Amino acid sequence: MTATIAIALDAMGGDHGPAVVIEGAECARERYPDLRFRLYGQEGPIRAALARAPRVAAEAEIVPVEGVVLGTDRPSAALRRARSTSMGCAIEAVKAGEVAAAVSAGNTGALMAMAKVALRTIPAIDRPALVALMPTMRSDSVVLDLGANTECDANNLVQFAVMGAAFARSVLGLDRPTVALLNIGEEDMKGTTELKLAASLLREAGIDLPLDFLGFVEGNGIGKGEVDVIVTDGFSGNIALKTAEGTANLVTGLLARAFRASLRTRLGYLLSRPALRALKDQLDPNHHNGAVFLGLNGVVVKSHGAANVKGFANAVCVARDLVAGRILDRIAEDMAKFRAHLPQGSPGREAAA
Amino acid sequence: MTATIAIALDAMGGDHGPAVVIEGAECARERYPDLRFRLYGQEGPIRAALARAPRVAAEAEIVPVEGVVLGTDRPSAALRRARSTSMGCAIEAVKAGEVAAAVSAGNTGALMAMAKVALRTIPAIDRPALVALMPTMRSDSVVLDLGANTECDANNLVQFAVMGAAFARSVLGLDRPTVALLNIGEEDMKGTTELKLAASLLREAGIDLPLDFLGFVEGNGIGKGEVDVIVTDGFSGNIALKTAEGTANLVTGLLARAFRASLRTRLGYLLSRPALRALKDQLDPNHHNGAVFLGLNGVVVKSHGAANVKGFANAVCVARDLVAGRILDRIAEDMAKFRAHLPQGSPGREAAA
Repeated sequence: MTATIAIALDAMGGDHGPAVVIEGAECARERYPDLRFRLYGQEGPIRAALARAPRVAAEAEIVPVEGVVLGTDRPSAALRRARSTSMGCAIEAVKAGEVAAAVSAGNTGALMAMAKVALRTIPAIDRPALVALMPTMRSDSVVLDLGANTECDANNLVQFAVMGAAFARSVLGLDRPTVALLNIGEEDMKGTTELKLAASLLREAGIDLPLDFLGFVEGNGIGKGEVDVIVTDGFSGNIALKTAEGTANLVTGLLARAFRASLRTRLGYLLSRPALRALKDQLDPNHHNGAVFLGLNGVVVKSHGAANVKGFANAVCVARDLVAGRILDRIAEDMAKFRAHLPQGSPGREAAA
Repeated sequence: MTATIAIALDAMGGDHGPAVVIEGAECARERYPDLRFRLYGQEGPIRAALARAPRVAAEAEIVPVEGVVLGTDRPSAALRRARSTSMGCAIEAVKAGEVAAAVSAGNTGALMAMAKVALRTIPAIDRPALVALMPTMRSDSVVLDLGANTECDANNLVQFAVMGAAFARSVLGLDRPTVALLNIGEEDMKGTTELKLAASLLREAGIDLPLDFLGFVEGNGIGKGEVDVIVTDGFSGNIALKTAEGTANLVTGLLARAFRASLRTRLGYLLSRPALRALKDQLDPNHHNGAVFLGLNGVVVKSHGAANVKGFANAVCVARDLVAGRILDRIAEDMAKFRAHLPQGSPGREAAA
């Protein structure tokens, strides 16, 4: 008998509720037959959705929970009633070791708050980071932090680098991902004190790690796919992610407008449709769905609220890849290697003691 | 006789040297016949380039300077020999009041250092900011700071807001530009302490200013054209600008790749060429060329090093618009209005005393 990977799903999260969550799980199960699910939420809607997901229906366990976290709920308010919500119970199942991971398409702030309080950070990690994939000319790149920490010090950035590389190994299947810090220039003298310190720590103590540290990368290096893992604080990471999203919409919007200009370009549009569909497909956020709140004692994945079935399935597969890739062990091992190379008395080494 | 506007040009700056600078000036002069030029640089190459610029040749004054700032020069090194370089002498002419503005396509760091030392900041402004236009779905938006100040406090951000609005009035011809602070969420509780303080200062004391303060905007709001002026620190601004550039290249690159997929899409490409050219044109950085180092006692405009004739002409026209729009007076007047509304004893008011 093969080992299975059990995942808790917040069936009530996201714009489309149980239908997309459960069909997404069905789709993920087709890709990975080792997946098993626990479904948290209101029993009626869950059972209705299971009618269209025979594989999941055959084996899933339903855990009835009435409370739902709304998109408009403040994280602090959601946190107080966590244990009566589908989101909170899914996370508790990770804490109790009943499942290997939890996936929710619900309120990001509430999910981060609940996961942080219930699971706590891995001993070697000071703060968890939000990590996800962004499309590039080469393939996808891992970017973190995307908004969990507005301000970060050098130790946080170094820890993000180690976590991002572990993520790239599990999810992108790379042996030695390249890693760089997002900065406003590639020269050593550029950027904040924290960035310069993080770079020197990674150069000094990163030698035994399964990654290649390349120094600094600028914003335009993300789209080029210059590095596999881009490390930054949550403020700049969020600005970069959303600016990229806005610019992709701008370019495709201007293109659509340009196609409407004349009869010739309208005809050109009709002939070009397969190419335009391929472009749309490559930029589709559902393809990169599944942001992970990394650095906790447990795997928690956030799906876009608006994700479709394929998108939610991708988020589930990210959770499965991280579990199969033993992400938590990898991070702990790599942080231990890193700290062993830090000079005696350095702040990074102290923090790890 | 009409009043003329004299502009100093660093003829040696940029990847293409005097040829593009002087033909760009000729092109700007066609748009604005009130422009007159002083050309700083090596006499031989300047005279050779003037052969193709009859209007500029007829009236321009050549100021022979042998020294040239290279793209690879460190700002500190360039600064020491400023007065023997075409860039430094062009800035000195602004300081001496011989010209109304200077334009250079040379080394950005050197230009910023020289301009700051020679011209100093306007009394009400603590730090100058690098400002430029970015394309959006609506029209262009003004974004600052794009990299002059890695870290900024609330007063810096407020001053950037006032300067950015004055820029939008002069260059975009808007009466009351909308202004927002770049942040990682639109809710009041999001972002750094400095951002929240800057927002409350602008809400409180911005009531008499010729601008509408809209609060916070996220990265994806830039491409949408949600606001006319986007205010941020130089780190985030640089990340946003370069990420946008990289994403635009990514999308157009993926599109080009998609068009090559089949015979049908290749044919579609041929028919669509006018639309694709229009898109390329709208995203062409030459159209938004002319970054301004704003907040100094003088107008200094930085052209992209790689700008073509049209691009350099745009940079010259930005300089001309700022002079004609009395940008320095506007900033001083608006800062005075702003400070008059600050509560007694607030740090912004102190700084202005």
